[in-house]
Amino acid sequence: MAVAAIIGGGVIGGGWAARFLLNGWDVRISDPDPEAERKIGEVLDNARRSLPGLSDVALPAEGRLSFHEGIAEAVSGADWIQESVPERLENKHKVFQIIQAHCDPKAIIGSSTSGFKPSQLQEGAQNAGQIVVAHPFNPVYLLPLIELVTTGANDGDMIVRAKGIITGLGMHPLHVKKEIDAHIADRFLEAVWREALWLVRDGIATTQEIDDAIRYGFGIRWAQMGLFETYRVAGGEAGMKHFIEQFGPCLKWPWTKLMDVPELTDDLVTKIADQSDAQSGAHSIRALERIRDNNLVGMMRALKAQDWGAGALMNAHDNAMMVADGVVRRADQVTDASAPIETVARAVPLDWTDYNGHMNEARYLQAFGDATDRFMEIVGCDADYIATGGSFFTAETHIRHIDEVLAGARISIVTRVLMGKGKKMHLWHEMYEGERMLATGEHILIHVDLATRRPSTPSDEIAANLARFADAQGDQPRPEGAGRYVGAPR
Amino acid sequence: MAVAAIIGGGVIGGGWAARFLLNGWDVRISDPDPEAERKIGEVLDNARRSLPGLSDVALPAEGRLSFHEGIAEAVSGADWIQESVPERLENKHKVFQIIQAHCDPKAIIGSSTSGFKPSQLQEGAQNAGQIVVAHPFNPVYLLPLIELVTTGANDGDMIVRAKGIITGLGMHPLHVKKEIDAHIADRFLEAVWREALWLVRDGIATTQEIDDAIRYGFGIRWAQMGLFETYRVAGGEAGMKHFIEQFGPCLKWPWTKLMDVPELTDDLVTKIADQSDAQSGAHSIRALERIRDNNLVGMMRALKAQDWGAGALMNAHDNAMMVADGVVRRADQVTDASAPIETVARAVPLDWTDYNGHMNEARYLQAFGDATDRFMEIVGCDADYIATGGSFFTAETHIRHIDEVLAGARISIVTRVLMGKGKKMHLWHEMYEGERMLATGEHILIHVDLATRRPSTPSDEIAANLARFADAQGDQPRPEGAGRYVGAPR
Repeated sequence: MAVAAIIGGGVIGGGWAARFLLNGWDVRISDPDPEAERKIGEVLDNARRSLPGLSDVALPAEGRLSFHEGIAEAVSGADWIQESVPERLENKHKVFQIIQAHCDPKAIIGSSTSGFKPSQLQEGAQNAGQIVVAHPFNPVYLLPLIELVTTGANDGDMIVRAKGIITGLGMHPLHVKKEIDAHIADRFLEAVWREALWLVRDGIATTQEIDDAIRYGFGIRWAQMGLFETYRVAGGEAGMKHFIEQFGPCLKWPWTKLMDVPELTDDLVTKIADQSDAQSGAHSIRALERIRDNNLVGMMRALKAQDWGAGALMNAHDNAMMVADGVVRRADQVTDASAPIETVARAVPLDWTDYNGHMNEARYLQAFGDATDRFMEIVGCDADYIATGGSFFTAETHIRHIDEVLAGARISIVTRVLMGKGKKMHLWHEMYEGERMLATGEHILIHVDLATRRPSTPSDEIAANLARFADAQGDQPRPEGAGRYVGAPR
Repeated sequence: MAVAAIIGGGVIGGGWAARFLLNGWDVRISDPDPEAERKIGEVLDNARRSLPGLSDVALPAEGRLSFHEGIAEAVSGADWIQESVPERLENKHKVFQIIQAHCDPKAIIGSSTSGFKPSQLQEGAQNAGQIVVAHPFNPVYLLPLIELVTTGANDGDMIVRAKGIITGLGMHPLHVKKEIDAHIADRFLEAVWREALWLVRDGIATTQEIDDAIRYGFGIRWAQMGLFETYRVAGGEAGMKHFIEQFGPCLKWPWTKLMDVPELTDDLVTKIADQSDAQSGAHSIRALERIRDNNLVGMMRALKAQDWGAGALMNAHDNAMMVADGVVRRADQVTDASAPIETVARAVPLDWTDYNGHMNEARYLQAFGDATDRFMEIVGCDADYIATGGSFFTAETHIRHIDEVLAGARISIVTRVLMGKGKKMHLWHEMYEGERMLATGEHILIHVDLATRRPSTPSDEIAANLARFADAQGDQPRPEGAGRYVGAPR
């Protein structure tokens, strides 16, 4: 079992702890704050309700979480050590000294610093090559970006290893090869923050108006394409060169405020805090965190459905987990054709639930649809086959809702073949949380020619695989509830 | 019928045209470009595939679109005139002169300018009080933000009217009362653009890396909460004051690049264009536009489900449209209780469809679930009633998929009550595109006590309303397909 040591709790350290823990790592935490356990517990609560369901496959079983008095005990034998202590360089140097006196020389030491360059962190270190910047973004348990900043002291193998570990946590290592103050993303945040302070100070806009200017406009654009790709599209067929030439002259406009730094007087601080209270004070911070996480999960899952941006990253990660877990995806991996096949194993995501946290009616069918898709893949009706012009369409569905299930619950679906012959496939799905049956789904599917949209016979391979399962399972007694009409007495 | 005149086509003018047209306005376009009709047609194609389904209710019937040689003809009798000509002040002044010589003095003249202040636009105008800045964001047909910038020359009544029209288009008028160069949002864009140019110029990051730094991290945060609310959450319980005091010192850091403007040399322009080709060149601009719109629709609908940010705006707009259209929401609005009730009328949104544009299996149940929700509301099981602790849960569902339907198609669902007595409600939904039947849904629902999650009897009001429909409809012959089991011969 891989081991991560988290040096410095708080919101960032806690987010790292959640990422490692929920991806199956053992996590050891060292933080002198007597409140550390409570604070990290709160971050973990948020992470557990939002991250597992973000995936369309089950995450590994959680690792073991432990709290440690000293850094020495936490880092000894750890594979990854993440430092998230306050942003004072002398302080960080002292922490690295203790870490390096007790850790495995092969361990990677990542720093969450947003401001320091890795060369500054490495100064005077016993083993400079072990230290990198691994800068995450809050909430760390949901946002995939890690700025991985390295120097010449870090050797190539170590960097490859670091990238692999970050990717394995479902995150994206953005390798910044040429170090710079504040790395990349925070330079943008800083530029916008500065400008926002001026606008508030000069009474041009309130905090609420600035947030609306962002989230009703370019914020939604940037969430999926960033800056350059957005402008490429805006430039249209004339291309990027044309766009820059058009937009370029604006740089010469007299927006002097961009060049200067507003003074953070008490008045300005109070003005911002008061406006922020008026804007968001109706919600507690805890409530805002959950609203934010609900929004992020919904939007990231929307990107996942489009296989784009952060959603494409997540799909790649799901696939990697399926490979690692040996999830059954082809008929020849099924040894006992007479047993029901597990076709879904996942957590219920936040965006599948109502305001009370219960899974919505339509999501039962979505999960059964996913089970059908997996079963189709197993019998050979996979993406490659569908590209050749054939597929199965659902003709009829009967769902019995037997019990409720909450967001975050791990559900599984097992699938039986009631009939599979010619153009027709008759499937029976059962959905469970543990041993508790939640619902059944009975479906008739028809194989169609995608060009004509008319019924057609599937390939010989699919027919043979279907026949194998249907023959092995068809003699078994019909499941209770199959062949039932809506409203039939139970 | 309200009339909008669009002076200057292109991507922005075309986007405005789409907003007005799809919200039922007649639209007159004047643009000297011989390609204007083709270009605006392309924007309209994009808008028609993405905007109608973004709503959960049907948009009004499209208005009439016409192209006009001269500005005079286009603006005469128009209620809103939107100027989107190139950003040269003398040019805009000339256009305003012609507009004002022919338009209704009550008409509102909005300028799409991103750089000029309204006082600059109003200089020397015949009727300065008629001119405002109404600055939209690309794609105008999807993003709701309008920066409405006014001066003392604009009277209060006119500003209220302008806000009402913008809101009526499903957009958000952000009223900027104190004019400033580039308004609000573009000042942020400019700050980030400047910093991005430096990073590319100095070889710190490529366009792809910069876009990833945005869209895998803070971009997704900003899409839903903007800047200040995000930082409020990050500051945690210590509050906004504490956060600013912590983040404040960073302002003094020597990030000198923020203070300076990179020179747009040919080399830099080529470097950016080449990197952008490497990043996005595999997709045509048209393909990128559609990918972007798919992403935006998916994310905005995710926010809609959370009733937050841009999604909350859309929900308010849907509600206003339902009120305006007199959509049936209470039993006493139903005059003929024996007829099926229309419970859904909407367009199929992009995020309900597969890569071929056909509506996904699970979305049929989502639409039937929406129909059930509306029917529940009609009989009195509305949000207020549910808050008192009672609701109906679906126990069983039978769907027959009869025909396919594409993204953008207008679908309707009509609902019959097969039985409604005691704790039980038996509903029959039929889904249509025009006269074409797409699917049927048969559902048994049970009234439950939300505290115990056990069956219970509904309120007297609900029971009486249900009885009224069930009695009036119950004697009719059962619909073909009702009471059918999955796989029963047709």
